[in-house]
Order: sequence, then structure tokens, then C-alpha cells
Amino acid sequence: MKNYHRATLVGAVFVAIVGCQATSPSKTVGDNLIINQSDDAQISLLLAKQALSSSLSYDIVESLTVEVGPRLTGTDKDIIAVDWAMEKLWLLGFDRVYKESVQVPAWSRGTARASIVSPYEQPLVITALGGSVATPINGLKASIVRFDSLEELTNASPGRIEGKIVFIDHKTERHITGKGYGEAVGGRSRGAIVAAQKGAVAIVIRSIGTDHDRMAHTGMMRYEEGTPKIPAAAMSNPDADLINAMLKRDPNITLSLNMTSENLGIATSYNVIAEVTGSSKPDEIVLLGAHLDSWDEGTGAIDDGAGVAIVTTAAKLIQDLPQKPARTIRVVLYAAEEVGMVGGKAYAAQHADELDKHYIAAESDFGAGPVYKIDFNVNPATFEQVKQQHSAITLNGVELGNNQASGGPDVSMLPALGVPVASLNQDGTDYFDYHHTPNDTLDKIDPKKLAQSAAAYAQFAYMMAQSEITLRPVTQKKQQH
Amino acid sequence: MKNYHRATLVGAVFVAIVGCQATSPSKTVGDNLIINQSDDAQISLLLAKQALSSSLSYDIVESLTVEVGPRLTGTDKDIIAVDWAMEKLWLLGFDRVYKESVQVPAWSRGTARASIVSPYEQPLVITALGGSVATPINGLKASIVRFDSLEELTNASPGRIEGKIVFIDHKTERHITGKGYGEAVGGRSRGAIVAAQKGAVAIVIRSIGTDHDRMAHTGMMRYEEGTPKIPAAAMSNPDADLINAMLKRDPNITLSLNMTSENLGIATSYNVIAEVTGSSKPDEIVLLGAHLDSWDEGTGAIDDGAGVAIVTTAAKLIQDLPQKPARTIRVVLYAAEEVGMVGGKAYAAQHADELDKHYIAAESDFGAGPVYKIDFNVNPATFEQVKQQHSAITLNGVELGNNQASGGPDVSMLPALGVPVASLNQDGTDYFDYHHTPNDTLDKIDPKKLAQSAAAYAQFAYMMAQSEITLRPVTQKKQQH
Repeated sequence: MKNYHRATLVGAVFVAIVGCQATSPSKTVGDNLIINQSDDAQISLLLAKQALSSSLSYDIVESLTVEVGPRLTGTDKDIIAVDWAMEKLWLLGFDRVYKESVQVPAWSRGTARASIVSPYEQPLVITALGGSVATPINGLKASIVRFDSLEELTNASPGRIEGKIVFIDHKTERHITGKGYGEAVGGRSRGAIVAAQKGAVAIVIRSIGTDHDRMAHTGMMRYEEGTPKIPAAAMSNPDADLINAMLKRDPNITLSLNMTSENLGIATSYNVIAEVTGSSKPDEIVLLGAHLDSWDEGTGAIDDGAGVAIVTTAAKLIQDLPQKPARTIRVVLYAAEEVGMVGGKAYAAQHADELDKHYIAAESDFGAGPVYKIDFNVNPATFEQVKQQHSAITLNGVELGNNQASGGPDVSMLPALGVPVASLNQDGTDYFDYHHTPNDTLDKIDPKKLAQSAAAYAQFAYMMAQSEITLRPVTQKKQQH
Repeated sequence: MKNYHRATLVGAVFVAIVGCQATSPSKTVGDNLIINQSDDAQISLLLAKQALSSSLSYDIVESLTVEVGPRLTGTDKDIIAVDWAMEKLWLLGFDRVYKESVQVPAWSRGTARASIVSPYEQPLVITALGGSVATPINGLKASIVRFDSLEELTNASPGRIEGKIVFIDHKTERHITGKGYGEAVGGRSRGAIVAAQKGAVAIVIRSIGTDHDRMAHTGMMRYEEGTPKIPAAAMSNPDADLINAMLKRDPNITLSLNMTSENLGIATSYNVIAEVTGSSKPDEIVLLGAHLDSWDEGTGAIDDGAGVAIVTTAAKLIQDLPQKPARTIRVVLYAAEEVGMVGGKAYAAQHADELDKHYIAAESDFGAGPVYKIDFNVNPATFEQVKQQHSAITLNGVELGNNQASGGPDVSMLPALGVPVASLNQDGTDYFDYHHTPNDTLDKIDPKKLAQSAAAYAQFAYMMAQSEITLRPVTQKKQQH
């Protein structure tokens, strides 16, 4: 009841704040205070109000998608994105803006064509998986062998597979948490290794995606030393349905596959960093992350232009406060997340000697919002205190969650290094409709939901930058992949 | 009130029929009769019931999309579709199955690539419009000039256009009737002529489509003797949005365009025809049409595999009645609708001497249903009688409409030749999301809605094959394009 009562009171403040039309809101808010609220909570509510009434988050993702667009790691456009970010952050007036070089894998998509040769000749819509090798120059032709899942492939006898094209037909379930992706993505990331170990000549998976659009979903795949590297592609969901309908008529389906993708070695990219310098504990860091790179077929709007916009907006609103919070807010726009969290790993290595000064970290990399729940990974002994401290965030529609946060991909390795993290969980119900496809474009973003996410990050960042709770030691969870 | 009363009674019959589990329904129905119903209406309700409980319509469109798939006029796949149709209709046991040759234009799509060169380099998703010529072999590069509509282009001074790429940015409004398509499609069909007359080097339009998918919508375009033939393409809606966002930043946008499409002269295709021979007036015809050809990027599921399935199922159910209706039911699966209703025009010419024996005609070419309204174009003096005769169709969710039907594209020229037509209007709310794109695939079809449309066509066809109402003379309406 105590918490409920508090939430009600905070609600009144929030309504009052949102309702007022003050020309100088940071001063006027003081007049509207309700005594039960801490000063920090009041300021976090003000930040939320500002985020909700500002177009800044949408303006940032529009700028990135229009003025840069696709920015595949290791390409010229990747560097154009870095330049864009440096300039944007500088123009926003952050206390510090800098970049740190990261060595990243470079890969060229080339073309990817496939068709069913028999029993019924039909073209397929496919895309190369990230990192895939090419087919032989004249392509390859082989019959397919279908598996429900990577697990079924793993258990299959090589005799069924040798000389064939493996088809993993794992459907991705729609869910707010995106858990269907985690259940299906193994076939994409590890399928080529398992298939090649059993003698397959290529692998083509059903796209890891929840849509019915005739677009294939790309995404990273891996090879393993000592196992042949076979071409790997994804087909659209309707194409996988088509193959299933053909298999009902004839178990022997021959596919033709021609891909010209190519690994291009190592290139240089950059983690781009902006800071709001803390007023009293400037060497202690609240890290807000997102990744700057994107796949190359869309314009990188929901993945992860939205995240860039959300964390940049949150930090900018704090930058503009008349009184800076105690700790430094550090925005890190990571390089090369899509190709294996390369920027995140580089950051952890390059900043090893100050990780003990990282008070908490969180990354936004799950689309354009809204945030519906905040989880933490902090000292279990102080977790309830941290939740109570964040009660004002519930007024922005964010539920207080559990103490098992991963923090987001590029910060997922930090808990093992002692750094507390939080996950501001965004509604991912339609995220995997568009993710890693040409459909990842600006029109998929609702400016209001994006602003709500920016508001939540601003509230979180401010509270954490002011917090006097001890967050360490954290529970060391396994890393997210 | 009289009509309402009748509908209520018919409703009772319908519920009784649908509820019963008779093993020999055509005999059992007689036991359930309500005296106010004519025998014909009872049989039409039986047909509706059978259509609704049968998977035949879905099975047909699945077969066509899986075993044939894309079937562009004048290609090998077009002939495979003709063979598929001949065999399918023969296996269904129609009294007559035959084909009639049609000379059709052949065209090769080739590849179509476009990108923005400046101010911000980005690739675009485009597709060639049907019939377009290629660009010069190395492509072309020019700045764009934007127009809201074909009308604005028509009114523009050539000075603004000469040497440029015309961009028509007409958004397609979503509507159950599909009227937004009619409002926007002029830019696709006639834009290249108007643009070329004013000196444009190419035209790229916003896709005529209601979706936000990053897929371009193809469709037919025309040239005119004496006007230069310029390349014509469509870009996806998100790409058009991207260009608008760039235009806000910089009015000077340069596009690069490379297309290899090619007109290949004349080929032979076929109208495929099946008949249920009438029992007492076999030379009088109730024509049910759909078109067999499709665009080449999807599998031709909603356009017009669905129509093929709907009219074939309707006729098959009548074929299997123990007592055939008076007139012949003629299913015509038209060739080459997409490229200018070529099969429809050929049919009208080839059957000129028996058009006076065509009692009525209707084509299904608007997706997979449901049918929500039936319109006619019959003798105004007997229109009310015709509507009353069709009251049983209202129990299948079909409203009785007006007397201004077009009949559908391939029969739209028939009223001018004296033939009455009907339009069984299908709900087109999402039709233009998928129409003429790679997304025109089987998964977009709801088997229940498809079966409802087949039921409506079966009811219509049976009532018309038995009708004793004089439908001529019709009001001669202008043709639909």
C-alpha cells in the first residue's frame, strides 16, 4: 500500500507537470511540488515531461536515416555515420564528444539469387546472411533437406545431408519480449557449422522474423575453424511456406543458389561517445548505449537508429538541466554491434581500467518503444531500494521489474566484469516484422512511443546519476548473444 | 418491409441448411423448405452452403500459386499456367474445356536499380513498370522534379522538366472499393507520355499502393506514337517518403537509374474456357470471368489466382448439381489482363456473333474477398426484379446494390456491346497493400473469405442461369480501365 500511495501522489505531480504550460519549466516545477517526492524524482518527472513534448528523438532518427541511411560495418557509409554522429552530438552541446577506434570485420553482401528448379520452377526471395561466403561463381544446384530446427539438424544423421542444401524451417513466434527470436536464431548463427559438419553444400533458413512479407531477414552467421565454410542465406516466410507446400506434393526439391558475398578482412570503425560531465562525481559513469551501425538493406531506423535517438535525447535533456547531476552520463554509440557486438567488446577492453567507475549501464537496441518494464542487475541486497527509487518511472507507463537484466547486447558482458546493468524493456511485438530487412525504415516509428522511451531513459539516467545506493556486487549472469 | 420479411425467412432456411449434416444435402434441403422461397433460391442457398464448407477454392489457388506461381503474359510460365488450367478444369469434370488463342505483348522485366546520388547517397527500391523501355546501357543520371499528381505534371511548364526525371508523388488512399487506386493510377499509366512530351528523360512514381512495405508496385504503363519512350519505374512508399524528407533539406536531388527491361514483340497465349452445359437453353451463356495471367514478382495469389479459384469453384458446384440449370455457365480464364485486358478484348471480338446469347457476365478480379455488395448493369425496367430475385445472396453477407456495375476489367467492354453485367464487389481494403508486388502470395488469402466469395458467385451464377427476367437493353457505360 505504501508504494501504491506513493505512486498516486507522484501521479498527481506528473499530471500537474504535464498539464502546466510554463515557459521556464525547470523553475516552475518547484512551485508544483508535492512534499512526498524527493527532489530527484521531481526532476526525473520534469525530464519525462520534456521528452514527451519534444520532437528531438524523432528528429535524430530522421536525420540519421535520411542523411546517412544504411551503414554496414566496415563500409564507407559506416564512416559517414560516425561523422554524422560526431557532428550531431557536438551540435547538441554535450560537454565532451569523442570517438575511439575499433577494428571491425568488413563484408560485402553482393547479390543473392535462388530459385526452385524442380518440381515447379519458381524464383525465391533470399538474402545472404552476414559473413557468408559466396557460392562457386556459377552457383550451385542441389536438393534440399528440411529440418524443423537447429536441434533436429544437430540430431540428424550425415547420410541424409551430405551433398544437399539444408533448409531449417523454424518459425519465429511473436512476443512482446521477442523471445521467439532467441528460440529460432541459433539456426541462423550456428546452422552453417552444423550443416557443413554433416556434409551440406549450403544452408538456406526460413527468415528469423514474425512477418508475412516477402522479404528475407539477414543477420550474422558464424563459421568455425576446421569446418568447411558453406554459403548461408535466409528466405522470406512466404517462400518457406511455398517450399512446404511443394514438399507436400514432392519430397524432392532441387534448388539453385548463386551468391557473390565476400569477406573483406578488417576495417576501422569507431565507438562514438558523448558526455554530460557530472557535477560532483565526474569520474563515475552512468552509461547509456545504442549501436550506430546497421544492416544494409533498410535505413537502420528501428535497428538501431531508434536507440541512438532515445539515449541521445535522454542525455541531451540532462545536459540542458540548470544543475547537472552528480555522476557523468556517458552516451556510447557502439560500432559493429550487428556483426558480433564488436564495439561493445572493444569498449569493455579499452575501458577495463575504469569499469569499476561505471555505476550502471543500459543499452537501447530493441526498436522504437515504448518501454514497458525496467529490470536491473544490481546487488540483490539493495534491489528493492533501487526499485523504490525509480517509482516515478511508473508514471511514464514503465513497470518495475526483476533483478535479472542483461542490459542490452553491447553491455551484456559488463556484469561479468562487475558492472551493474539495467534493461529498459521496449515492446518488441512487431520488432521482428521489420528487423534486418529492407522494411527497417523511418515510417515504422511512432514518434510518441519513441519519445516515451527517451523519457524513460532520461528518468533512469538522472536517478542513477544522483543515486546514493550501492549497486555492487552484481550477480554475474551469462552473456546475452 | 416486404424485402426485410423475405430476408428473415430466407435467413431461417439458411441457418437450417448450414446447421444440417445431411449426407445427401441436395435431397435433404427439400425437407427443410420454407414455402416463401422459390426452388431456385433454395438451390442457391445449398450452393452457398457447399462453397462455405468446401476447401475447393483455397485448394485451387494453392495449386496455381505453388505449381505455377508467377505467370507473366507472353513468357514460358504463361503457357505453363494455361496447361495447368486446362488440366485442372478437365479434372474437375466440366462438360467442356477448351482454349482460344490470343496474341499478347511480351515483355522482359530485366533488372531495375536506382539510387540517390546526392545530396545523400542512398539506394532505392524500385521496379520497372510493365512495358517500360530500358535506360541507356550505362544508366542515366539526372535531377528529379516532384509533382503531387499527374494533373500537376500536366499543368507544369516544360522548362521545369526538360532533362530531368519526373517524380509523381501521388499517395494511394485506402478504401473498401479501391477508389484510391483509380485516383492515382493515371500517373502510372499515362505519366511517361506527359513527362516525355515536356522533355523528361525518365519517370519514377511513388508506388500505387496503400502499404508501408519497402516493395515497389509494378503495373502497366503506356507509350504513345510520336512521343519519345522514356524509362518508367515505381519506387516503394518508404522510398518516396525518404525523397520527400531529403527535399526538405535540399531541393536538388540527383538520381541514378539503370533498367534493362525490354519489349519482346508479340507472343501467343490463350483464354482458357470451361462450361457447364445448360439443360434447356444451352446456347445462352452466364459468363464468369477471372484472369489467369499475373505479374511476375509475386505468385499471383490475390491477383488473380483468387478470382480463378472463386469462379471455378462456383461453376464446379453447379456442374455437380443433380439437375443442371437452364443456361450454360461459362468460366473464362482470360489471358493477358494485366497488360491491357488483351484476353477480354480478344474474347469480345472472337465471340462477337454470340454476344447476343450472353445473358450476363461478371469477373472476379479484386482479391480474395469477401463479396460485400452486388451491383448490376441490366435493363433499368427490370432491375428491381433482378434484385428481388437475388435476395438469398444477402444471407451470405452480400448487400443488393445499384444498377451501375462495370462487371470487372475483362468484361467491362461488354455492356457497350449489349451484354448485361454484374459486379460482385469484394472488400478491397487491403488489396492495394499487396497488389503487383512480391507480396502477392498465398499467405495473404483467408480461406473463409475466399469461400464466401465463391459462395456468392455460385448463388449469382445459378440464379442467372435459371432467370426468366429480361435483362436487356442495358445502359451503355464507359469502359473501365
